[in-house]
Amino acid sequence: MTRTRLSLFDTTLRDGQQTQGVDFSGDDKRKIALALDALGLDYVEGGWPGANPTDSEFFANAPVLKHATFTAFGMTKRAGRSAANDDVLAEVANAGTPAVCLVGKSYDFHVETALGITLDENVANISESIAHLVGLGREALFDAEHFFDGYKANPDYALRCLDAAMEAGARWVVLCDTNGGTLPDEIAEITGAVARRLPGDRLGIHTHNDTETAVAGALAAVDAGARQIQGTLNGLGERCGNANLVSIIPTLLLKEPWASRYEVSVPKDRLPGLSGLSRMLDELLNRAPDRHAPYVGAAAFAHKAGLHASAIIKDPTTYEHIPPEAVGNERVIPMSNQAGRSNLLRRLSEAGISAEKSDPRLSRLLQDVKDKEDRGFSYDSAEASFQLLARAHLGLRRKFFDVERFRVTVERRHNAMKNLVTVSEAVVVVNVDGSRFISASESLDEAGSDQGPVNALSKALSKDLGKYDAAIADMRLVDFKVRILSAGTEAITRVLLESCDGEGRRWTTVGVSANIVDASFQALIDAIDFKLHRDTDR
Amino acid sequence: MTRTRLSLFDTTLRDGQQTQGVDFSGDDKRKIALALDALGLDYVEGGWPGANPTDSEFFANAPVLKHATFTAFGMTKRAGRSAANDDVLAEVANAGTPAVCLVGKSYDFHVETALGITLDENVANISESIAHLVGLGREALFDAEHFFDGYKANPDYALRCLDAAMEAGARWVVLCDTNGGTLPDEIAEITGAVARRLPGDRLGIHTHNDTETAVAGALAAVDAGARQIQGTLNGLGERCGNANLVSIIPTLLLKEPWASRYEVSVPKDRLPGLSGLSRMLDELLNRAPDRHAPYVGAAAFAHKAGLHASAIIKDPTTYEHIPPEAVGNERVIPMSNQAGRSNLLRRLSEAGISAEKSDPRLSRLLQDVKDKEDRGFSYDSAEASFQLLARAHLGLRRKFFDVERFRVTVERRHNAMKNLVTVSEAVVVVNVDGSRFISASESLDEAGSDQGPVNALSKALSKDLGKYDAAIADMRLVDFKVRILSAGTEAITRVLLESCDGEGRRWTTVGVSANIVDASFQALIDAIDFKLHRDTDR
Repeated sequence: MTRTRLSLFDTTLRDGQQTQGVDFSGDDKRKIALALDALGLDYVEGGWPGANPTDSEFFANAPVLKHATFTAFGMTKRAGRSAANDDVLAEVANAGTPAVCLVGKSYDFHVETALGITLDENVANISESIAHLVGLGREALFDAEHFFDGYKANPDYALRCLDAAMEAGARWVVLCDTNGGTLPDEIAEITGAVARRLPGDRLGIHTHNDTETAVAGALAAVDAGARQIQGTLNGLGERCGNANLVSIIPTLLLKEPWASRYEVSVPKDRLPGLSGLSRMLDELLNRAPDRHAPYVGAAAFAHKAGLHASAIIKDPTTYEHIPPEAVGNERVIPMSNQAGRSNLLRRLSEAGISAEKSDPRLSRLLQDVKDKEDRGFSYDSAEASFQLLARAHLGLRRKFFDVERFRVTVERRHNAMKNLVTVSEAVVVVNVDGSRFISASESLDEAGSDQGPVNALSKALSKDLGKYDAAIADMRLVDFKVRILSAGTEAITRVLLESCDGEGRRWTTVGVSANIVDASFQALIDAIDFKLHRDTDR
Repeated sequence: MTRTRLSLFDTTLRDGQQTQGVDFSGDDKRKIALALDALGLDYVEGGWPGANPTDSEFFANAPVLKHATFTAFGMTKRAGRSAANDDVLAEVANAGTPAVCLVGKSYDFHVETALGITLDENVANISESIAHLVGLGREALFDAEHFFDGYKANPDYALRCLDAAMEAGARWVVLCDTNGGTLPDEIAEITGAVARRLPGDRLGIHTHNDTETAVAGALAAVDAGARQIQGTLNGLGERCGNANLVSIIPTLLLKEPWASRYEVSVPKDRLPGLSGLSRMLDELLNRAPDRHAPYVGAAAFAHKAGLHASAIIKDPTTYEHIPPEAVGNERVIPMSNQAGRSNLLRRLSEAGISAEKSDPRLSRLLQDVKDKEDRGFSYDSAEASFQLLARAHLGLRRKFFDVERFRVTVERRHNAMKNLVTVSEAVVVVNVDGSRFISASESLDEAGSDQGPVNALSKALSKDLGKYDAAIADMRLVDFKVRILSAGTEAITRVLLESCDGEGRRWTTVGVSANIVDASFQALIDAIDFKLHRDTDR
């Protein structure tokens, strides 16, 4: 049977950016766009050029995508001017992307209430805007805002808007359930009615999760004839979010009858990257990943009940609808470290740390990793700290130096000029091979502005390590991430530090404590220790 | 048109308890059961009597429900003994609940692989167990585990299991998608096939969220003829959770065609209690509520984009699929980069801050918000800091106190017992109405463990504010979020603090600085200032 091709359109960087509390930087956007491209999506919508400085900068320094069509978002021109003379549309066109997606009205009530123009004017706006972009050689998409509500109120007018876009040369017209209030059965019914009039391979679906059915709504629309799905990573998006591509993609590739009926651009062998991609987005947003997320959540294949867990050990298919490794996830069975041990051996060998399979110290290391992860350490992100912990258990960790004590002070007061200033200072006492070194540091950058207690501590620590000074001279902090976790009733702080050296090598370490300075201190010590192990082992 | 009656069955206290990290106490269970009863559900399943000490205690001290049928969960008897002699079933029956729901197999593969008994033995177990309960005068329900997978593998056998339960007197037979892998279209197809054989008003549906379609799957089953929905509050449940009743109930009551087609036991006028019920569950579990939860999430009716916000002000139905107050939620039009002037006016009026539309100070406020957001402040998360900033621009911010200076110290050293300890300490000098107060605080929790510099600073700040001591006495920090942002080449720290008071009110403030202690200080000052403005304005 020939499979029908579906198009996957990601709008994490545009509609996902509408999420409360989400403010991507240009660099965040570049990272995400490249990751979406690597996964194999068809379209990556980057934002709205001209709408805010971040989006404008991002399009000016756009990433080069290998597979996906890079897309700018905008809206149809306003009434009373030509498409060529609409400055908002001009900024979108000037971004120079191969594709442009324009949102426009298709609901008569909105045309008259929100825009305050005539129904004909709106149709002309759609038609001329799309034709203008097509004339510039761009691929044009039309997002029909509030299409389902519009269709229910005035089907003829809603369809007329789609026709206008289609006739003007739009590659796709996309039915948007902007309010998120349309349920899957109605989406299927209306999409089916549209698909009977318009060519299916030019029809898209864009759903929101306001009734917790965005994923099902998108699938129902495909069943009814739509051939493009618009959605976001992790279902990011305004209000309750958009259709979650992280759930939709594995369903299309792994579940029947979808897998034999449809073909998508994401190759099945890249699906194991999905869990990592989902977590990367949370990492960039400094959000705790949803443990219960379908397919990719840490608990998605966790089996708590004794009954289930014992059946799982007999045959995993008894309680799992897909093999977790297909999406890069893993099975979690409490009290079983079967899977843990083989992972551990692989990881050690990758780090160049040799260990015998039967070494009883491996079980203790595994238990320690689990205990520490329960307390908030995350060794997946902090590979360097993991290696140091493994070395400690296997008797391979050397003692280079010892911090006898430190004191960090942050003071806010009026200076001699009567200005309020903040000053951070650290004092550290270190022992190296029996010699004692005391160092102090302020935390001022080149402009004389205070950089805070962790910076002061880092400077003081690396100021005098006796004979190791040369080995750490080229080391610097490049990133510092803080997350507050709750462990039981306590709030604890996890610090992840990324360091680099003169050869451009980077490594990440972790510290956990109720005290942020203490957590940072642990990560700083690991960072220096890792560097010394590596450079003195060579 | 006569509406068809649907039955709502809650399993938060049984299947919801399978969630990783969830361990209800008996008191938690009593509170939740009473709240579910007050909302008006038909069945409240309390747990499995005999399976663990908590459940046994809970059934021994069961709450008295006014409306809902209190239900115990168990499994069909084992082979090789009579129903009366099965000790597991006896414990369930002895709990004395008016209804009992028994799970049993309906998938031939599981009967033979997991149970290791013959297909006939399994049918006899179902039949005899149900008949035993009915004989004791109980209402019996049969949860057919893995029904959809079983039906696909061997429809005759799966149906034979349902028939056995039905003929033995089960009030309901419930089709369970135990793995959560069946998609809504297939659920509809199979449920439809079953409904053509069995009376619909004895057919239930039980779905899981492993493909993010649990809610849609339950609705699809109802469409195909099922008349009971089993689910949990907030979609709690093993792996990715169960069908979320908090999303299903408002859909059935408020959305068409559901509302005119079906009748449920929850009265529409109790629906405004839903948001509170959802948050109460998170409160009991000590979890942060999901801001993006459909219907009840804090962001479910939050409008970020300037375009949407200005339309919302003209007519809320333009971007809202239901009125937020129908489910006890509220509209939020946060301030952010993308917000315009109309958004600002709306926000001010909701905060009780009056301003003339033409007031030129509004433009300066808007510009200040934008400038600060470019420097990392996020007023869409920190509503309280936004209000203080607005008050400052409009000449409405009072000066309650002034911090002359502070000093925070974190020290790590050996104590008298030669253990390494970390100690944080803060000293603050505050002026209130010309009086000077100096306060010092350590940062130790009840167990004597150090909680870090921000905690010490917070304690010292609130220790002595002279005549305002009473006003801030009931205030405490409930959440602390830190994000490192890059602004140009500099790394800066954004701190978001959530505070609450004795009346359960919560507010969030923000601070931004290269120095994390300084950023926290700004947010702390705003938190206290907000409380004083509100409580002294009353």
